[in-house]
Amino acid sequence: MIHEAMRYSLLAGGKRVRPMLCIAACEVVGGHHSAAIPAACAVEMIHTMSLIHDDLPCMDNDDLRRGKPTNHKVFGEDVAVLAGDSLLAFAFEFIATSTTGVAPNRVLAAVGELAKAIGTEGLVAGQVVDLSCTGTNTNVGLDTLEFIHIHKTAALLEASVVLGAILGGGSDEQVEKLRMFARKIGLLFQVVDDILDVTKSSEELGKTAGKDLAVDKTTYPKLLGLEKAMEFAEKLNEEAKEQLAEFDRDKALPLVALADYIAHRQN
Amino acid sequence: MIHEAMRYSLLAGGKRVRPMLCIAACEVVGGHHSAAIPAACAVEMIHTMSLIHDDLPCMDNDDLRRGKPTNHKVFGEDVAVLAGDSLLAFAFEFIATSTTGVAPNRVLAAVGELAKAIGTEGLVAGQVVDLSCTGTNTNVGLDTLEFIHIHKTAALLEASVVLGAILGGGSDEQVEKLRMFARKIGLLFQVVDDILDVTKSSEELGKTAGKDLAVDKTTYPKLLGLEKAMEFAEKLNEEAKEQLAEFDRDKALPLVALADYIAHRQN
Repeated sequence: MIHEAMRYSLLAGGKRVRPMLCIAACEVVGGHHSAAIPAACAVEMIHTMSLIHDDLPCMDNDDLRRGKPTNHKVFGEDVAVLAGDSLLAFAFEFIATSTTGVAPNRVLAAVGELAKAIGTEGLVAGQVVDLSCTGTNTNVGLDTLEFIHIHKTAALLEASVVLGAILGGGSDEQVEKLRMFARKIGLLFQVVDDILDVTKSSEELGKTAGKDLAVDKTTYPKLLGLEKAMEFAEKLNEEAKEQLAEFDRDKALPLVALADYIAHRQN
Repeated sequence: MIHEAMRYSLLAGGKRVRPMLCIAACEVVGGHHSAAIPAACAVEMIHTMSLIHDDLPCMDNDDLRRGKPTNHKVFGEDVAVLAGDSLLAFAFEFIATSTTGVAPNRVLAAVGELAKAIGTEGLVAGQVVDLSCTGTNTNVGLDTLEFIHIHKTAALLEASVVLGAILGGGSDEQVEKLRMFARKIGLLFQVVDDILDVTKSSEELGKTAGKDLAVDKTTYPKLLGLEKAMEFAEKLNEEAKEQLAEFDRDKALPLVALADYIAHRQN
């Protein structure tokens, strides 16, 4: 049953943006995609784990995710907590034991980078501040909003890109350029998420739409207005792509396409 | 607040059996204790994380742990879930980034071993079966009981020892001998836990005593009777120490002492 619960959410048909970023970053620095496959799987496991835990009744209390009932709705809260824990642990196991053809010190650096993206400098930090800001009617400013997004969404997107770059054999300079690229699209991803929440239906999104508004969550459209939020998204997309200028143009095409996809996605 | 929640449970005064096992295993194979310190901290973080999540209302619903209110009683369920997730991630970050003087391939092997001890072949597997057996009045046999204990308790004790042995530079043979030692004391640990639950008060234990009986949990004293359970504990202690026969006698003394401590502890 625990394996069923893990598979249920992992294979619920996400967009797989993080694995694609990981593999594209590996290839842009000249690595073979096979070097990044276990890491690509691992970042999707971490992402899934964060969704399962965030959806719990004691957190965001969501019933619908990717068009299906959330994990705890199907398997119970106890199994949902444990399925998340398992996915978290298995992500590290899989990177550490299944990555082949890469120097161990690079794999180790990837493990450290991934772990950092989860903890109190990453996903968890974002969720903690998010929970403390929801429905309190406190005056949440742009700074706090960016903190939440950078940690809750951007940290793992950044790690996905950086892991790919490290495992693909990128130089320190290349890794840092791609980190800057990832930070821009990380923020972009969340701005677009906020815009979709107010412009699309639940059916189109595959999750509860208008939820941010209902729980009085601070969002970019709320802070900037819808039009300015859309302009901000375009600006971030352009800035992200500027970071790729020094890479081989052909090899950078998948990353450019992913940035455009994130900017223009409809769900 | 999330850091406070992590520290609250991590520094609540556990027995630190796992870190001591990790360091002792490192030294018995001839390693310097400094090689195992980050791993020793990591196994304690994982242990603490498993306690925080196991105590949640949707799991074992415990109010008291190590003589103090459980994490969710103090910080709320949402923060307790996230504090556990953070400790899990930080354990991997700490091993991967803070272990010094050890070849990267050994550190990587340690990461893989630790991750395996948590997931569906370890802690989580034990908790899943434990939850499914509690209060159901199904006929839980000795096989199921051993499965629960081997996974819920013994897996991390085993990993603590194996991590120390790997990071200390132990040969494959030495690592396997110490793994056998760890399996014996892992089971021993749980048998003694079960015995203490029926023979000690909550005050003496620092956690709710008689709880296993109250929720109709299958335990060794329930299955074997108290006397036979105590005999079984002694047998396991002897068998564990036999595994140390081929190591330097002086260097093995801390592991022998830890086995005796586990067998004869009063809380």
